[in-house]
Amino acid sequence: MDVELKEEERLDDLQCGGLKIIQSPRLFSFGIDAVLLANFARIKPGDTVVDLGTGSGVIPLLLACKTAASKIYGLEIQREMADMARRSVMLNDLEGRVDIIEGDIRKADGILGISLADAVISNPPYRKAGSGHVSPSDARAIATYELKCTLDDVVNAASALLKNKGRFYMIHRPARLADAICGMRKAGIEPKRLRMVQPFADKKPVMFLIEGIKGAQPHMDIMPALIIYGAEGMYTDEIYGIYGMEVPEHGG
Amino acid sequence: MDVELKEEERLDDLQCGGLKIIQSPRLFSFGIDAVLLANFARIKPGDTVVDLGTGSGVIPLLLACKTAASKIYGLEIQREMADMARRSVMLNDLEGRVDIIEGDIRKADGILGISLADAVISNPPYRKAGSGHVSPSDARAIATYELKCTLDDVVNAASALLKNKGRFYMIHRPARLADAICGMRKAGIEPKRLRMVQPFADKKPVMFLIEGIKGAQPHMDIMPALIIYGAEGMYTDEIYGIYGMEVPEHGG
Repeated sequence: MDVELKEEERLDDLQCGGLKIIQSPRLFSFGIDAVLLANFARIKPGDTVVDLGTGSGVIPLLLACKTAASKIYGLEIQREMADMARRSVMLNDLEGRVDIIEGDIRKADGILGISLADAVISNPPYRKAGSGHVSPSDARAIATYELKCTLDDVVNAASALLKNKGRFYMIHRPARLADAICGMRKAGIEPKRLRMVQPFADKKPVMFLIEGIKGAQPHMDIMPALIIYGAEGMYTDEIYGIYGMEVPEHGG
Repeated sequence: MDVELKEEERLDDLQCGGLKIIQSPRLFSFGIDAVLLANFARIKPGDTVVDLGTGSGVIPLLLACKTAASKIYGLEIQREMADMARRSVMLNDLEGRVDIIEGDIRKADGILGISLADAVISNPPYRKAGSGHVSPSDARAIATYELKCTLDDVVNAASALLKNKGRFYMIHRPARLADAICGMRKAGIEPKRLRMVQPFADKKPVMFLIEGIKGAQPHMDIMPALIIYGAEGMYTDEIYGIYGMEVPEHGG
């Protein structure tokens, strides 16, 4: 389907099933975190999935390509972003499976309904509000700082949307690990699986991926770290695999 | 000082400043976890330190060797273990700095007093009670299963013993990470520093080390993982360093 591109917008290849995504350098472009999160989530055939704060819609698009989810909702508070995401959905002829909704995460259960989701995903703003000079009207600031929703808002919305035993997936910064774990438990989503994301095997993690299950018993599984770069600055084989790229031949 | 060894007891070298420790194969011998925990703890000159569930007294002995702590208390509920630890203290002429007290962690603040410690350390039982056939009178079972104290008991005792801004150090199993983090926060000890312990760089962690600070603001630092084995089954240089052993020459 032909879809209009607005000024400053460009069409990027999602490297998954030929999907394309509209992005704007003036707004917020997706990064490796969205790709890692979409890959970390365990989505079953027939699942109903909600992506909280979907931005350009990258996670719903990737999940539409990589999984057999029946229905994927992307909730986005910014009208301009939601409009752009909706045009990406049309561009890929995914209107049946992917639905982009303009709305506030803090009202997600009122918008979508309670206990409807098998899985809820979020790549939320990482930084606390008030930790810098930010304009609350700036699209990038809203995606980066907790201006429109806090970590607890995301987790509470996820809990309301999830069915019992439904799965929650989030990526966040190491500094917020205790906030994530305690917030999830408080909201009735038990943290079950944790994976650190590290640039190199011997360095600190820069992000973590976490899975929680609503109403589950406590018992965590900490996976081997996901390492981004291997020798000589090349991606590791796992990262090439996640991006669907061919692994280059290794030198001696 | 000459100290009597009981039947089945043996004298082991702590590989730190010539210190010796009495251990009994019938009871519970210390493992690498106690050594890693003693190394992870940041103890300042003049600190008052409490080790909750000290067992053979390995952590107080190591801290007496490695740090300039003024006073180190080891609390142990098992009379036989406490007696053995006390004889190890005498053997090393450490009666002035190390004090082994027979008592229950759940009554630690009544025994030692509140807000007296700059740092509290614990290598607690890892397993939940009721998860196997265990005899509550068995010394090894008490050190392994939460028969005499739970994780929350340890954290609550630590919080009562610590001064404001005092530090708490614990090692535990990955399965209990959420219990540790949420229990600490609930007890007013904010989780601040986390380090995974992994047999190999590309494998799952088998333990984690955690530091919390009483009354601190939320913000976690996740350190690079501590890797135990390197190439060809040899210890990594870091482990050789922690054990005070010379690093063997590396092959090609």
